[in-house]
Amino acid sequence: MHDEAAGTPLLRRDEGGVTVLTLNRPAAFNSLSKALLQGLLDAVEAIAADPERRVVVVEGQGPVFSAGHDLKEIGRNRTREGLGELFGLCSILMTRLTTIPQPVIAKVDGIATAAGCQLVAACDLAVCSETSRFATSGVKYGLFCATPMVALARAVPRKAALEMLLTGDFIDAREARRIGLVNRVVPKEGLDAAVMDLCGRLLDKPAEVLALGKRAFYAQVDAKAGTGLEAAYARATGVIVDNALGESFAEGLDAFTAKRRPDWSRKDGA
Amino acid sequence: MHDEAAGTPLLRRDEGGVTVLTLNRPAAFNSLSKALLQGLLDAVEAIAADPERRVVVVEGQGPVFSAGHDLKEIGRNRTREGLGELFGLCSILMTRLTTIPQPVIAKVDGIATAAGCQLVAACDLAVCSETSRFATSGVKYGLFCATPMVALARAVPRKAALEMLLTGDFIDAREARRIGLVNRVVPKEGLDAAVMDLCGRLLDKPAEVLALGKRAFYAQVDAKAGTGLEAAYARATGVIVDNALGESFAEGLDAFTAKRRPDWSRKDGA
Amino acid sequence: MHDEAAGTPLLRRDEGGVTVLTLNRPAAFNSLSKALLQGLLDAVEAIAADPERRVVVVEGQGPVFSAGHDLKEIGRNRTREGLGELFGLCSILMTRLTTIPQPVIAKVDGIATAAGCQLVAACDLAVCSETSRFATSGVKYGLFCATPMVALARAVPRKAALEMLLTGDFIDAREARRIGLVNRVVPKEGLDAAVMDLCGRLLDKPAEVLALGKRAFYAQVDAKAGTGLEAAYARATGVIVDNALGESFAEGLDAFTAKRRPDWSRKDGA
Repeated sequence: MHDEAAGTPLLRRDEGGVTVLTLNRPAAFNSLSKALLQGLLDAVEAIAADPERRVVVVEGQGPVFSAGHDLKEIGRNRTREGLGELFGLCSILMTRLTTIPQPVIAKVDGIATAAGCQLVAACDLAVCSETSRFATSGVKYGLFCATPMVALARAVPRKAALEMLLTGDFIDAREARRIGLVNRVVPKEGLDAAVMDLCGRLLDKPAEVLALGKRAFYAQVDAKAGTGLEAAYARATGVIVDNALGESFAEGLDAFTAKRRPDWSRKDGA
Repeated sequence: MHDEAAGTPLLRRDEGGVTVLTLNRPAAFNSLSKALLQGLLDAVEAIAADPERRVVVVEGQGPVFSAGHDLKEIGRNRTREGLGELFGLCSILMTRLTTIPQPVIAKVDGIATAAGCQLVAACDLAVCSETSRFATSGVKYGLFCATPMVALARAVPRKAALEMLLTGDFIDAREARRIGLVNRVVPKEGLDAAVMDLCGRLLDKPAEVLALGKRAFYAQVDAKAGTGLEAAYARATGVIVDNALGESFAEGLDAFTAKRRPDWSRKDGA
Repeated sequence: MHDEAAGTPLLRRDEGGVTVLTLNRPAAFNSLSKALLQGLLDAVEAIAADPERRVVVVEGQGPVFSAGHDLKEIGRNRTREGLGELFGLCSILMTRLTTIPQPVIAKVDGIATAAGCQLVAACDLAVCSETSRFATSGVKYGLFCATPMVALARAVPRKAALEMLLTGDFIDAREARRIGLVNRVVPKEGLDAAVMDLCGRLLDKPAEVLALGKRAFYAQVDAKAGTGLEAAYARATGVIVDNALGESFAEGLDAFTAKRRPDWSRKDGA
């Protein structure tokens, strides 16, 4: 399976400003082999550097979104060095999803387990079909989902996270929305449209404003220095003042005053 | 509009122990002009210093709770200094709502956007009518709601906050309750009664116990020093021991023992 | 009442790998007297040291889960030293529940108030009957639930916690699940079965993997040092690499490869 005889483990297609990344190891349940993780990271780095790319969608080929790490591959190289590289690479990818300028949407149709569930939790937004299911199932194989936990515990309430992590059991799409793991649940036949609708709502915003906002969001929810409300507001005030002095808001303000729609290509402002 | 020809931008009325602050710029959608923000801060400071004031309610005049910052006013003084003062003032107000001794309730009937939504998030409690809607809509004008984000991200789950911040779209009252932005949703005609009911549940508690509790709450959820569970419990233990040694609990304990209602005016205790 | 004439304040029974701790002061509403808190702490310490104990269930005898601290006892020794010892002991117990290797489940059938509600919040997981109710009611007696707050505010959204803490009012079982205070709500007659089912889902996992997972979970959600996402992932990567190199995962991996159920007693691995 790791030869990816069936093709490259990751597909990329650009549709207007949207880049869709497709996990393409359906025969291996889209498990996150080292090659796939590296492919994702490379793609994400390329997207981060390309101002034409405005929104990223991550989806899975076939009936499974992603089954998490590739246990067969892990079994072949179960050394401290090999595992450190693998989980380190995965953590770099998951963190990078939160630091690239573009919003990232997980589009889930099917099962997302372990690091596959982490991938959903690590994306900025997530939309799934009604038949999707989620689990941090590693504990069933004797491998606690310690790294998926980092993303999961930041997305959902504490007891919900603990139940998933300690039991490894599936939750359904409705429960995933209830606890905050996904934003929207739609019928399977409406998934494409729902994701495109959400993309559209992001595409009509100025890219650099989404970028500065996403950066500000994670800077304050995952603050390096444990800081209080005043420090959070001081940082946020700096962000919003800079934003308000920039060209996008000049155009937005002009449009507001003139009661017209903003034209974000007109960055010279009012 | 900034002349406030129609009257003062903030109304205050005291009803028993409850002080109601009414955003009074309905023709400007109760947008938070500098004068209104300063009026709110002055009122809040006066309330903080007045032990007769027991509960604060913030409401809006007319069909909009608050549309956030006054973009027209911002357009007139879009300098680093002017904007720094404006957003700094707003952040001081929003922080001060969490540090005054009295519980603060947002009473929302209509639309609350941007800093108007922040005001709801920053209040201790919030009650809204079924037809109310909420958005952090600044991104639609090219101005990411970076300061509203600070309050919003502390009130609701991460993906819900990101969706609101990145899309700028409205959520309805039911969704606002689902994600934790408001405590109660009631029919429009029941809003007054619901808020008065909640005020009543606060008025029959000893004011200084509510004050020490509110202070302890924000001290531990917004801890300046990133601290673990043991430190949080150490601080909380100090708080509850002091509380238990005070006059209010002496009366509460005596009432409990005598199976009577506590009389909080009887502060000499048992 | 404090003589515990009716028997020991805490009952313990072992059922297979599950240890059930029963608060046994029904005539005193299972209030957490110093003797009961010490009994709980002693039991928890003994369980922590006993690798045969796999899951802990905490339940109450009679129609009340626990009414919190014993106000009569507090009234008899309302000194700074006595109160400091009592609340300090309680905080040590509540923290210890999160640091013992075994998962701890609160099984609630009836009322859980003040430190009784804290006990539910402090357990890893919680299951309750439909008729159960929860409150942090201390404020009604002039004693703000400052220590229960520490556990509650970590389990539920901010405004939900503040409403409970400031009003002291009850929420019902359905609302407790909605805000994340309990994992499951079941009809009263199904409570035993639901808890046993959950225990079963934990008993079939390798104990030391649950232990390392639980430790990793609280280490990152209650981080002593305020740290960001990268630091959290660095710690979690260390945990999962160690886990992946150990005997349990060797067995899990072998079972996965051989498409058989793991046999956790076979710790020599594949």
